[in-house]
Amino acid sequence: MKVGNRQMRTIWLEPDGRGIGIIDQTALPHRFETRTLATLEEAVEAIATMRVRGAPLIGAAAAYGYALALAADPSDGSLASAYRALAAARPTAVNLRWALDQVLAAVRGLPPAVRAEVAYRRAGEIAEEDVAINRAIGGHGLSLLRGLAAEKPGRTLNILTHCNAGWLATVDWGTATAPIYLAHEEGIPVHVWVDETRPRNQGAALTAWELGQHGVPHTVIADNTGGHLMQRGEVDLVIVGTDRTTATGDVCNKIGTYLKALAARDNRVPFYVALPSPTIDFTLEDGVAEIPIEERHGDELALVSGRTADGGVASVRVVPDGSPVANYAFDVTPARLVTGLITERGVLRANRESLADAFPDRAAAAHAARALTPAAE
Amino acid sequence: MKVGNRQMRTIWLEPDGRGIGIIDQTALPHRFETRTLATLEEAVEAIATMRVRGAPLIGAAAAYGYALALAADPSDGSLASAYRALAAARPTAVNLRWALDQVLAAVRGLPPAVRAEVAYRRAGEIAEEDVAINRAIGGHGLSLLRGLAAEKPGRTLNILTHCNAGWLATVDWGTATAPIYLAHEEGIPVHVWVDETRPRNQGAALTAWELGQHGVPHTVIADNTGGHLMQRGEVDLVIVGTDRTTATGDVCNKIGTYLKALAARDNRVPFYVALPSPTIDFTLEDGVAEIPIEERHGDELALVSGRTADGGVASVRVVPDGSPVANYAFDVTPARLVTGLITERGVLRANRESLADAFPDRAAAAHAARALTPAAE
Repeated sequence: MKVGNRQMRTIWLEPDGRGIGIIDQTALPHRFETRTLATLEEAVEAIATMRVRGAPLIGAAAAYGYALALAADPSDGSLASAYRALAAARPTAVNLRWALDQVLAAVRGLPPAVRAEVAYRRAGEIAEEDVAINRAIGGHGLSLLRGLAAEKPGRTLNILTHCNAGWLATVDWGTATAPIYLAHEEGIPVHVWVDETRPRNQGAALTAWELGQHGVPHTVIADNTGGHLMQRGEVDLVIVGTDRTTATGDVCNKIGTYLKALAARDNRVPFYVALPSPTIDFTLEDGVAEIPIEERHGDELALVSGRTADGGVASVRVVPDGSPVANYAFDVTPARLVTGLITERGVLRANRESLADAFPDRAAAAHAARALTPAAE
Repeated sequence: MKVGNRQMRTIWLEPDGRGIGIIDQTALPHRFETRTLATLEEAVEAIATMRVRGAPLIGAAAAYGYALALAADPSDGSLASAYRALAAARPTAVNLRWALDQVLAAVRGLPPAVRAEVAYRRAGEIAEEDVAINRAIGGHGLSLLRGLAAEKPGRTLNILTHCNAGWLATVDWGTATAPIYLAHEEGIPVHVWVDETRPRNQGAALTAWELGQHGVPHTVIADNTGGHLMQRGEVDLVIVGTDRTTATGDVCNKIGTYLKALAARDNRVPFYVALPSPTIDFTLEDGVAEIPIEERHGDELALVSGRTADGGVASVRVVPDGSPVANYAFDVTPARLVTGLITERGVLRANRESLADAFPDRAAAAHAARALTPAAE
C-alpha cells in the first residue's frame, strides 16, 4: 500500500540481497521510520519489541531472520540456535513457529553452503503467499462491497473496523482492510469509522495512519461510539479481523469486538470477519468456553503514549495511583453474531458446515486428531 | 463521602458563612485541591471551567454563586446581571437555570437588605434536597443489591458502571454510586468494574478516584472490556446514570452506555439506571429519534491528558495528524434494554405506565403541554 506517494510493503529484501527492510511500527503514527535488519540479533529484537507485529508479518520476519542467521553461519549449530532465538522472541505467536518450521524443512537436508540462498527463497515465498492470501480475501470482500454500494448509488459506503487488521499487520493489503483498499482503488466511495481500540490504540495509531497514507477517507472514533453510529444509520457494514476462529465460526479478536457485533445485530448491520484460513483452529468448538483470554499488564491501560507538544513521544498516567487495573486483550464473538467470514476461498457462513466444506482436509485432520484424544471422546 | 479519612461533600458553606468551598475537580485524580469561591466571578469561572461539574452539583454551585452576588450587591440590577452571568457559564445545563429560578423566586419580592440571607438559605436547601434525593435512590438501590447478594452468600457482588454518576457529580452520594456506597457501608462485599469512559476518561479519573478514597474495592477497565467480563460471569449487575430519560424509559447517557446494555441483555445481566426524577423529560417519547446528540471537539479524543513522569499534568496526541476525529458525547439506550430505573420514589420498570404512576403530576403536565402543541397532535 502507499506511504505518501510511495508503494510499500511492511517487509522487503534490500537491494544488496541480504539485508531485510522493515517499517519500524513502534514509531507510528508520529514518525515514519524504516530500518534494515542485518543480523539474526536485529531480527529477534525487531520481533520482540514489536517493531514488526501482526501474525502474518511476524511469520515473514522470522523466516527472513532465519535466512539472515544462515547467511552468517549456515552450520547445523546455527540452524538450531537461530530457531530457538527467533521462536523465543514472541513465544505465543503461532505463525512465527510455522514460518520457522517451513524454512527449517527447506534447508535441513542441504549442504551448508546453499542453505542461506534456499532460506531467503523460502522466506520470500512465505511473504508472497501472505500477499496472495490477503489479495484473495480482498477480492471476495470487494464483491460484498460492490453489492452494498449498488444498493445506495452515489452515496458513500460507511465501514466500521476495530483494531488493526490492516496491511501493517501483514506483508501487504491486510485482512479486514484488503476489501476496503480494493474498493477505494476501484472508485467505490468508501469511508471508514476507525475505533481507537483502547488500551493499545492500534486503531488510532495504525489503522488511521495507514488509511490516511493510502488516501482512504476515514474518521477516528472512541470505542464507545459504534453503537450510536449504527443506531443513526451511519454504518453500512462492519469488517474486523480475528486472531483465532473456531471450527464452528466463533471468532476471538481484539477486546471490544463482541460489543460491536452486538450493536450490529441490534441494528441489522452486516458484521463480517476477514481471516486467512490459518487462523482457523478446527480443534476448537466453543470459543467462549475454550479460548483462554490473555490478560496483559495494566500499564497498557493506565499509561497512554502519544506525541507531546514539543514533538517528542511520552506516556501520561490516566488512572489514579492505587486503583487496580485489569487488561484483557481479546474477547470472543459467537458465530451467531457473525454475518460472514471472508476467507481466501470465499465468503463463508460462520458455521461448522461452511468451514468444513471450504477446508475439508484441515477439518478432517482435526476431527481425526480429536478422535485420538481420550478427553474428547 | 470520604476523601482519605475525612468526610466531605463536593460543595459547602465555609465557616465565615459567606465563602463557598469546592473540590477543584479539574485537578483530579492526580491532585486533590479545594478552593473557596468568594465572588460571583469566581463562581462563574468554577462552573464554566468545570471545576464543579455534574448536573446536580452545577445547580447547587449556581445557587450559591447567586447568593455570593447578592451578598456583594443585593440590588435589582445585580439580581438580573448575576442571573445572566451564571446562566451563561454552562448554557445547556438545565439544572443550572432551575436552581437560579428557585433563588430568584425566593428573593425577588424581598427588600435588598435580606436578599443575601434568603439566597444562602435557599441554596443550602437545594444542596440538601440533592443529598436527600440521592440518599433515597441509594436506599432503593440498596434493596436490590441486598437481594442479589443474598443469592450468592459469601461471594463478592460485581457491579459495572460507566462514566461518573458518583458523588463528585452531585453534592453527595451520587446517583449510580449511592446504592454501592450504602452496600459497602452495610458490609455487603462489593467490587466495581469502572469503565475508563473515553474520550474524557471520567470513569478512570473520577469514579475510580472517589471509590478509592472511600475504600470501595474497584478495578479500572477499558470501555471495550465489559462484554467479555459479562460472558465470563464476572458482572452481577450494571448501574449507570443518565443525563435525560424519556417518558417511555429510554435513557440518554454517556456514549458507550448502549453497548454495555446490549452486552447485559445478551448475558442476562440486570441493567439498572439510577436517576433523580428531574432528569425525566415527560415531553419525549422516543429517545433515539428525538434526543439530539451533542458532538464535541475532536481534541477531547485526539489528546489525552494525564500525569507525566515528573509529576506534572500534560496532554499527548494519540491520533495521527490529518486523521479526522468524531466525538459524540452521548448515546441512547432503549427502554427495552433497561431492567429498572432506580429513582428517589423506588425502582420503576422502564416504561410509560410505571413512570406516570410514580410521577403523575409531571406526566400529566407534559401531556397537557403536548395537547397544546399542534405539531404533536
